[in-house]
Amino acid sequence: MPLVDLDRFDFLYANRVRGMKTAATRDLMATLSRPGIISLAGGFPDTRAFGEEAFREISGSVAADAAQALQYGPTAGLESIKDVIVEVMAAEGTQASQEEVFTTTGAQQGLDLVAKTFLDEGDGILCEGPTYAGALNAFAAYRPRVMHVPMDRAGMIPAAAREALEKARRGGIPVKFVYTVPNFQNPAGVTMVAERRRELLEIAREFDLVIVEDNPYGMLRFEGEPLPTLSALEQEDGDVDRVVYLGTFSKIFAPGVRLGWVRAQPGILHKINIGKQGADLCSSNLSQMLIASFFENADWRAYVKRLTGIYRERRDAMLDALAEFMPKEVHWTHPQGGLFVWATLPSYLDATAMLPRAIAKNVAYVPGEGFYAGGNGKNCMRLNFSFVEPEKIRRGIELLAEVVRERMELRSDLERGSQRGSRSQAGPRSTGVASGTDKG
Amino acid sequence: MPLVDLDRFDFLYANRVRGMKTAATRDLMATLSRPGIISLAGGFPDTRAFGEEAFREISGSVAADAAQALQYGPTAGLESIKDVIVEVMAAEGTQASQEEVFTTTGAQQGLDLVAKTFLDEGDGILCEGPTYAGALNAFAAYRPRVMHVPMDRAGMIPAAAREALEKARRGGIPVKFVYTVPNFQNPAGVTMVAERRRELLEIAREFDLVIVEDNPYGMLRFEGEPLPTLSALEQEDGDVDRVVYLGTFSKIFAPGVRLGWVRAQPGILHKINIGKQGADLCSSNLSQMLIASFFENADWRAYVKRLTGIYRERRDAMLDALAEFMPKEVHWTHPQGGLFVWATLPSYLDATAMLPRAIAKNVAYVPGEGFYAGGNGKNCMRLNFSFVEPEKIRRGIELLAEVVRERMELRSDLERGSQRGSRSQAGPRSTGVASGTDKG
Repeated sequence: MPLVDLDRFDFLYANRVRGMKTAATRDLMATLSRPGIISLAGGFPDTRAFGEEAFREISGSVAADAAQALQYGPTAGLESIKDVIVEVMAAEGTQASQEEVFTTTGAQQGLDLVAKTFLDEGDGILCEGPTYAGALNAFAAYRPRVMHVPMDRAGMIPAAAREALEKARRGGIPVKFVYTVPNFQNPAGVTMVAERRRELLEIAREFDLVIVEDNPYGMLRFEGEPLPTLSALEQEDGDVDRVVYLGTFSKIFAPGVRLGWVRAQPGILHKINIGKQGADLCSSNLSQMLIASFFENADWRAYVKRLTGIYRERRDAMLDALAEFMPKEVHWTHPQGGLFVWATLPSYLDATAMLPRAIAKNVAYVPGEGFYAGGNGKNCMRLNFSFVEPEKIRRGIELLAEVVRERMELRSDLERGSQRGSRSQAGPRSTGVASGTDKG
Repeated sequence: MPLVDLDRFDFLYANRVRGMKTAATRDLMATLSRPGIISLAGGFPDTRAFGEEAFREISGSVAADAAQALQYGPTAGLESIKDVIVEVMAAEGTQASQEEVFTTTGAQQGLDLVAKTFLDEGDGILCEGPTYAGALNAFAAYRPRVMHVPMDRAGMIPAAAREALEKARRGGIPVKFVYTVPNFQNPAGVTMVAERRRELLEIAREFDLVIVEDNPYGMLRFEGEPLPTLSALEQEDGDVDRVVYLGTFSKIFAPGVRLGWVRAQPGILHKINIGKQGADLCSSNLSQMLIASFFENADWRAYVKRLTGIYRERRDAMLDALAEFMPKEVHWTHPQGGLFVWATLPSYLDATAMLPRAIAKNVAYVPGEGFYAGGNGKNCMRLNFSFVEPEKIRRGIELLAEVVRERMELRSDLERGSQRGSRSQAGPRSTGVASGTDKG
């Protein structure tokens, strides 16, 4: 098909599609499944851990109710899965009732439905910087202004959040919600400390906003004490129900069944219900029944513990390899759980431009700029440790370090060349070079 | 929870949620599963036909690949399911290649993604009148102007479509697409004849629009010759690829796995791909692999034939019962396939107001007004014949006829009362009474 045909109906597209981009990870998917490549790019849990036998058991247990499993279900989900959701939330210390939980087609759909419920074009939202790229994709369809709030190793910085909200207020931008991944954040691997959770709630009260708490990784903790969810802290305070909590079975069971949930107050859930009817009518009964069967009959806590053990070993392998192989100008986070490490290269390096070279050397990562709405994060990368075995992680980081070093040397050579020549080829980026050229 | 809390965050909601309503069928779902009730309301295929044994076989066949079934998959779907989609489309006479098909979480998601791709607020779209309520729900999130084009027993009336488009053009409303369910339409049960399909394509060319062809029921034909899809007719003409075709496994396999597809040209699919990433990342690998296993290994055509036989018998039972029990002022369509009959009551009857009485008598239907964006269809109802056994359908229609008759008599009594009294209690509706009072 000639390329000219691709835009035949360009004049008919909605304005919103101009602001929407594909996620780098999704585009790379074909490349990343190439044999031989060590992919630190995906956000894949290790579904091999579940096992054929366990799968046979749960699918067998559903067979007797095949007619129901194959049928349409209620918009909000089956009673049985809502019971499971209530139990899982309780295990993380958050009280919820059946009426307050709502089944979604993955937490990703929760993000879409929350955005559909709250966002008019031009509305403001606060997100961590960097933030989950899939959330930016979901939100982009509703054309909000995304304001990134910087993080440090203790999570989103409350003073910066307050400042952004005050600036928006002065600018007349109605801010609808603050979006946060408080535990082992995607992509940064950072966890928001308890004190900051309380501060964030305080800020939300002050500005009368909703908080969207996206917590896919909370149970995948390798060390340290679990922290209360924002949802639980709000209950403790007896505050009005302003936290919209998003959960998922993708990380504690499996993503292939596409099942997550929203916990929110009934008024918000009512709007989300209407949105879901238009989006996909209902989530898969089959998925709901398989999950319910597993959580009711098997020791799901033991399974999560096993996963956590696997991921901890891989996190350790990644941190060790980073320390061993990376040039000292490279920095990275030390996640206490979850799936991701966030690495920051010298500011003059462009992780997007570097990716093809890395792939040619058989290692892949996600460049950082996809995790910002604006164009920041160019010298950063997200590294996943949940899917690849420890020895491969080690080899992958070794290869990646070679690519980084190569780029730093190239930069260093160019720098020397430009010092000899009449014009700098480095352009405006050269200000950031000083801290990077002492190695290479 | 006190009711006042329900709207605590009303001031934060997006404008779009004000224009979105819940589908009557979804709201009724709990009531309709009450034991003893004969529900002619749902749009449920009969999933009991599939059988526990067949379910065990396909889930067993997937177990060996459990790790993949439980994992995230590509946005557009697995290769294996795309092969199946190509095969199913070919069986309906439509050529498609792997690159032109895109997996969705039910055809409902296809509707959402198409709307997301094309609709800015205030854009025009043409829909049949009545049209699929779920499509109206999906579209409503993007706030279009819905223009209903009337149908007769040969489908959407082309002259009326042309007139609506000319009116929109004069009014400066950019019309993006025509939405049609050409076969055994939901809710009307009407099929668009071949000549009109060609005319509709001609009109779309003339106004340079997209046609969204939603074809969930095409294979469920009870009698007569299959008609070419609009997509196939367009290929025959060698025309530019302006038909966006929506298919689903819900009616030829099962809805509980939530899997459908879009077939469109690559430019449009690219936009849809971006939209899907934000909406739910990807559809369930498990669902895709179960379906692929069934379509590759079992005789799926024989299964569809069996379903068609079951539904034909039930359609016959419904048409016979309508003829036997309904007052002669009630009219209905005679579908050659699909799941639905559309009945029209005397114009002074309100099917929405009548529903609680019908449910009290243990029969349910969907009132007609949900199938119009505007408020038409009040005296109409959609009757489903695919889910309930023939004898129950007969009993359900008998009960329903009693309710209709009761209402007609009530009207007749009121009419006589008002003729005796000094003022008409019937109000402005009394003009339509003449044709209804000779019975009852």
